[in-house]
Amino acid sequence: MTTLPVISLETIQASLTEAEILDAVKGALIAQSRGQVNSPPPGMLQLNDPSNNHRGECHIKYGHLNGSDTFVIKIASGFYDNPKVGLSANSGMMVVLSAKTGIPACVLDDKGWLTNARTAAAGALAAQAGAPSKITSLGIIGTGEQAELQAKWTSKLLGIESITVYGRTASHVVDYVERMKQAGLSVAVAADIPGLLKSCNLVITTTPSDSALIMAGDVQPGTHIVAMGTDNPGKQELDANLFPRAAVIMVDDHNQCVHHGDLGHAVRDGLVSDDVDIALGTVLAGEKPGRTSDDDITIVDLTGIAAEDMAVAGLVWSRQG
Amino acid sequence: MTTLPVISLETIQASLTEAEILDAVKGALIAQSRGQVNSPPPGMLQLNDPSNNHRGECHIKYGHLNGSDTFVIKIASGFYDNPKVGLSANSGMMVVLSAKTGIPACVLDDKGWLTNARTAAAGALAAQAGAPSKITSLGIIGTGEQAELQAKWTSKLLGIESITVYGRTASHVVDYVERMKQAGLSVAVAADIPGLLKSCNLVITTTPSDSALIMAGDVQPGTHIVAMGTDNPGKQELDANLFPRAAVIMVDDHNQCVHHGDLGHAVRDGLVSDDVDIALGTVLAGEKPGRTSDDDITIVDLTGIAAEDMAVAGLVWSRQG
Repeated sequence: MTTLPVISLETIQASLTEAEILDAVKGALIAQSRGQVNSPPPGMLQLNDPSNNHRGECHIKYGHLNGSDTFVIKIASGFYDNPKVGLSANSGMMVVLSAKTGIPACVLDDKGWLTNARTAAAGALAAQAGAPSKITSLGIIGTGEQAELQAKWTSKLLGIESITVYGRTASHVVDYVERMKQAGLSVAVAADIPGLLKSCNLVITTTPSDSALIMAGDVQPGTHIVAMGTDNPGKQELDANLFPRAAVIMVDDHNQCVHHGDLGHAVRDGLVSDDVDIALGTVLAGEKPGRTSDDDITIVDLTGIAAEDMAVAGLVWSRQG
Repeated sequence: MTTLPVISLETIQASLTEAEILDAVKGALIAQSRGQVNSPPPGMLQLNDPSNNHRGECHIKYGHLNGSDTFVIKIASGFYDNPKVGLSANSGMMVVLSAKTGIPACVLDDKGWLTNARTAAAGALAAQAGAPSKITSLGIIGTGEQAELQAKWTSKLLGIESITVYGRTASHVVDYVERMKQAGLSVAVAADIPGLLKSCNLVITTTPSDSALIMAGDVQPGTHIVAMGTDNPGKQELDANLFPRAAVIMVDDHNQCVHHGDLGHAVRDGLVSDDVDIALGTVLAGEKPGRTSDDDITIVDLTGIAAEDMAVAGLVWSRQG
């Protein structure tokens, strides 16, 4: 009996280009918007064992794209004390299984890299979907892994050369600026979030904040905001009052965003109806506009969907032997 | 960066004895009854893609036992057309992760063997928990993998030498009798289920039936029934009217059994209240009796719990290097 093959991170990274990941994630978002994805609500295990001095959570996303000969289960951990011992907060792996027999086909030992890459791709596509015709500066809120990836992927996709960053912790901001300069970007540092919102009309939030960072009154007309940090009901990056001001609200998945995205706060507060949003996939497919004028405030709420994991994992598996 | 280790089926099988599996599963059921297990509701993906001519489902069970330094995610597929092409209907694997960092520690490539073994152990323990003082014959309904394992594990645990089987398909029954004889058991074949219930006062059901097989009026006083086949709301093995006749109703997990076990049918039909059951773990711990007289009808409803998977996976992992 053969043992399950494990595909290493190095092999995974060598088997995909950024352009291919963008294409795969775009296809996943469009399939999601068309109801072609069978993905039950994600599983989530919170590790708050008092006898275990570590805080963490593990998300399990899984599903099948109609017609595909595989389905995928993605495991993604976030343990926020890991950096104290020199480890990344995020880790994970994926399992590809046969949709004909249910038998595991392979393990993708990507250490969370595919999740980071598909999240970066989704953010860049979301930025593109509602970007104003002239981008003043790309604003990044946060200084972690996604803050770095969003700056790189979005600036490349949209041809942006200068970014503005805001982070709470000065030492992290200094590190971030250094890394971005090495990546060839010109970086300004905002003193606070209202300041960042004055100089940037394209803003991506990448934090695990548990209360609103972007206040409705600070957002200028014409701003496009991509909110990607909020992935459970206890997290929040956007003031719920911003949603009634938005001309277009896009989501990666309606149910997830209402349940545990930033949109959920606005819906639960009764500020917008729960059908106010449109699927990002319909904009990416060219079926609906992401903005109607350069004065619109527009928002994309991203929670991360199983279809994105399935798309990139399926692509890696299709490249093997 | 090291690649995730995969522990092969052969290594897994060599690292555990049946007695150790029974102990681990007993401990898991007791921990579950004491609220010491953090296991959210299982995930389930049904593969009913019309473009894919195969019917299947994949269950994801996951959780953490208070104080353990690992948590476990178990993937178990059931694809019922697999035997037509010479494959087992059941397959799967488990992932062991660090509860301190969230990082995957290893994959147990058990091909579903650990799930089969822990299910067999749970069935044998459930049979023991309510067995009458003198067992006439052990009745097995079904002829599949669990029908075989239940006969072997339960007869060994309880010192039973003769079993009675009922199956719908004659050729499967003939095969089953042959396999059980090779395992050293004396096997009678029942013509129908009422006949089996006349000669057996300990009965285990192991089928994927979608309607009741054991009718309330056919069950003799003093019979103990272990129902293990029903694991989603569309399946059923026991007539819901049997539940009001039972003196003791045990469950592996209250919520799961009310949601998708045989007990759920009786609760939804209003035949018993939803607090009629007790945890199997309390009986295994000696805290409550599994039966009060040899005239009692008693039932154990098993749905399979993540704690069992965590217990056996943790044991395998603890034996490595």
